[in-house]
Amino acid sequence: MRQNDLEDLRSQVTGLNSKILDLINDRTAVVQEIGKVKEKQGVNRYDPVREREMLDLLKSENKGPLPNGVLEQIFKGIFMSALEIQEDEQRNALLV
Amino acid sequence: MRQNDLEDLRSQVTGLNSKILDLINDRTAVVQEIGKVKEKQGVNRYDPVREREMLDLLKSENKGPLPNGVLEQIFKGIFMSALEIQEDEQRNALLV
Repeated sequence: MRQNDLEDLRSQVTGLNSKILDLINDRTAVVQEIGKVKEKQGVNRYDPVREREMLDLLKSENKGPLPNGVLEQIFKGIFMSALEIQEDEQRNALLV
Repeated sequence: MRQNDLEDLRSQVTGLNSKILDLINDRTAVVQEIGKVKEKQGVNRYDPVREREMLDLLKSENKGPLPNGVLEQIFKGIFMSALEIQEDEQRNALLV
């Protein structure tokens, strides 16, 4: 019985992992679009004010159980990754 | 025109942030349930084999644009956080 509970809970986690991944990919694609628009405008891609606003909004929306400190840690990682991917693309574009 | 594009893309990011947060909260709640089941069974919560399996599955499912290296980085953060939250709860339970 218990083992079945565990299996069921684990498959819930596996399904949630996939959904989170899909959304992070969607987000990355949109951030890439933003990067292109900003590039044409000659604007710097990294915008710490906008990042802080996004974090504050997320913390205000957060219903838990994730504590806000951990939320901030995870999303800073997501934000930074999107930026790193853009920088790699820019570097590759320069090498072509 | 360009500015409107940027606003539209940014609101897409804001919406995706919220959806990602909701799913991470759902995931955290399920992981807490798993922790309770494991606690009753006297099993260690941290399971590096299962973590590796989850990462491998995610990488095989990944359609991009997120590179697998960044995927691993982000999800290791999510996995670690869930574990940290459980440990905090356990510590708090011991203090009661």
